[in-house]
Amino acid sequence: MSAGITIALDAMGGDFGPDIIVPAAISALDQHPELNIILVGDEDILRQSLNSSRASGDDRIRVHHASQQVEMDELPQHALRNKKDSSMRVAINLVQDGVADACVSAGNTGALMATARFVLKMLPGIDRPAICTALPNLESHTWMLDLGANVDSDAEHLLQFAMMGSVLSEAVDGNSNPRIGLLNIGAEDIKGNEQVKEAAQLLGSGNLNYKGYAEGDDIYKGGFDVIVCDGFVGNVSLKTSEGVAKMIGQFIRQEFSRNFLTRLAAVVARPVLKAFRHRIDPRRYNGASLLGLKGIVIKSHGSADALSFSNAIKVALVEVRESVPERISNCLQHHLDQELTQ
Amino acid sequence: MSAGITIALDAMGGDFGPDIIVPAAISALDQHPELNIILVGDEDILRQSLNSSRASGDDRIRVHHASQQVEMDELPQHALRNKKDSSMRVAINLVQDGVADACVSAGNTGALMATARFVLKMLPGIDRPAICTALPNLESHTWMLDLGANVDSDAEHLLQFAMMGSVLSEAVDGNSNPRIGLLNIGAEDIKGNEQVKEAAQLLGSGNLNYKGYAEGDDIYKGGFDVIVCDGFVGNVSLKTSEGVAKMIGQFIRQEFSRNFLTRLAAVVARPVLKAFRHRIDPRRYNGASLLGLKGIVIKSHGSADALSFSNAIKVALVEVRESVPERISNCLQHHLDQELTQ
Repeated sequence: MSAGITIALDAMGGDFGPDIIVPAAISALDQHPELNIILVGDEDILRQSLNSSRASGDDRIRVHHASQQVEMDELPQHALRNKKDSSMRVAINLVQDGVADACVSAGNTGALMATARFVLKMLPGIDRPAICTALPNLESHTWMLDLGANVDSDAEHLLQFAMMGSVLSEAVDGNSNPRIGLLNIGAEDIKGNEQVKEAAQLLGSGNLNYKGYAEGDDIYKGGFDVIVCDGFVGNVSLKTSEGVAKMIGQFIRQEFSRNFLTRLAAVVARPVLKAFRHRIDPRRYNGASLLGLKGIVIKSHGSADALSFSNAIKVALVEVRESVPERISNCLQHHLDQELTQ
Repeated sequence: MSAGITIALDAMGGDFGPDIIVPAAISALDQHPELNIILVGDEDILRQSLNSSRASGDDRIRVHHASQQVEMDELPQHALRNKKDSSMRVAINLVQDGVADACVSAGNTGALMATARFVLKMLPGIDRPAICTALPNLESHTWMLDLGANVDSDAEHLLQFAMMGSVLSEAVDGNSNPRIGLLNIGAEDIKGNEQVKEAAQLLGSGNLNYKGYAEGDDIYKGGFDVIVCDGFVGNVSLKTSEGVAKMIGQFIRQEFSRNFLTRLAAVVARPVLKAFRHRIDPRRYNGASLLGLKGIVIKSHGSADALSFSNAIKVALVEVRESVPERISNCLQHHLDQELTQ
């Protein structure tokens, strides 16, 4: 393999496995000259898939055998104990051993989280990993975390999420002073639960650019670069967004196919609708970061297609280039030093 | 006033007060022959507004004076103590005194909740009120609660929400066996927090038509008639939905106004886009129920226009017709009787 950045892919993970992961890998190699890829999984299947592709003989891609596979509905603890030679586990091992700079998996989220945590360990000062992704907004995008790695996060965890999100926005977007929001509710009676109220205090007294409470609609309005919340709330919010977008898409299709005239209007409006669909295409936002680990692990949507999975590879590439875990670690160290001198 | 159903309106509440509430009342009177309305608020302002309208002299609408007004950002406890003659408080008093069958307010949610709870009291067996509304889905609509009345709801509260939602779906939609879902997250690692796991047990062992966990996207997919969750999560989910829908609407507008050709396409597609906008028009879904009280109180969106506010009046009317609080009370009694005989 040539010098550059090496990414290990859990090539058996996700709903479609090598059928979409091999083409996604080849497309990513075309786009990123500095990229090397290790396909981790069943050697026979992967070699066959590679040999019949135009990447056959390319020394930037190679196969690393793993005899097992984590099922999509397998319990994390079961996978951890019984699947020590799974494509997921071996891909993470390659990161731990320094053979790969990052890994990408479309497999079982819980198992990926548990395995990554077990193999790579947490950064000092971080209690729990968080799942983070960029969501489109009217200005550009909002980094949101946690999207489901944790439930019942306390104020200290929310502060750690804010630090990690701030570093990610800085590293990936070159944003020198990311605006941080804390997700809360608008009912005047209560203004949030205890964790949120405590977290607001912690965030306000730190050296982050904390802008106060954000409500659910602020995610898509813009005004915040990073919004933090407990993983239960974040996951519901993310899935709700997917549900609304799908329903609206379906309503648009139904209205445009109602009769001859509306179908004619659809033909005229096709380029506009295409541009619109491109803007909200969730595939462009595929690739969530598992932050807080001593290594880079990117989770792709399980049902990702090749375009979508190659976006997740790109996210991994950017995080390697920007040394995201080291930067999170430095930010934390800085925060701890400040606390000690206070 | 003639016989029929009488609804008291907090005519000073919301962002626009009488300017939209008086026209909304008149439009509701036109639509519902059995409806009588009491406008509660500043007598001079309301009389002036009524006299210059076509409802002048209509004996189905009258004014009831209230000298104070609850501010949109006023603390609930402050309103409760210091605004005993507010339009909101007096409208609720009219329900308590049996003069009105229900009341509708676009005012401060927290104050409305606190005042309604103080004046009307909770139904026996219900610990906390819940805010419930119908959200559109691919099939028809989903009743969702709680949308922000409570944070940190425990399993027993979630069960009470499910009973109340089930009654509402039955009463309003004539649905004889509403399918109940419990909002949860999909990350395989954890499958929910402790409250949700406990609530699933309670819901599964009761006599509701409990269908298991729902995820955020299920709200808009259909498949459940009622989805219950803690108010923090529900409020974030609702606001997130508003944010996504607004962003998508904005993207559509931007794409259709990009250049001469796209503007031409917009002209052709106008009837289709209009039909589409009608389907997702949030004004059609205005009017959230404060469930669990010994009386009917409907909360309108603060920024509601006349069409929107008249929808909230319609929600109140339906709940009066269907005796929603009595039905909730009966359902609870039935549940308690069952528990005693077990």
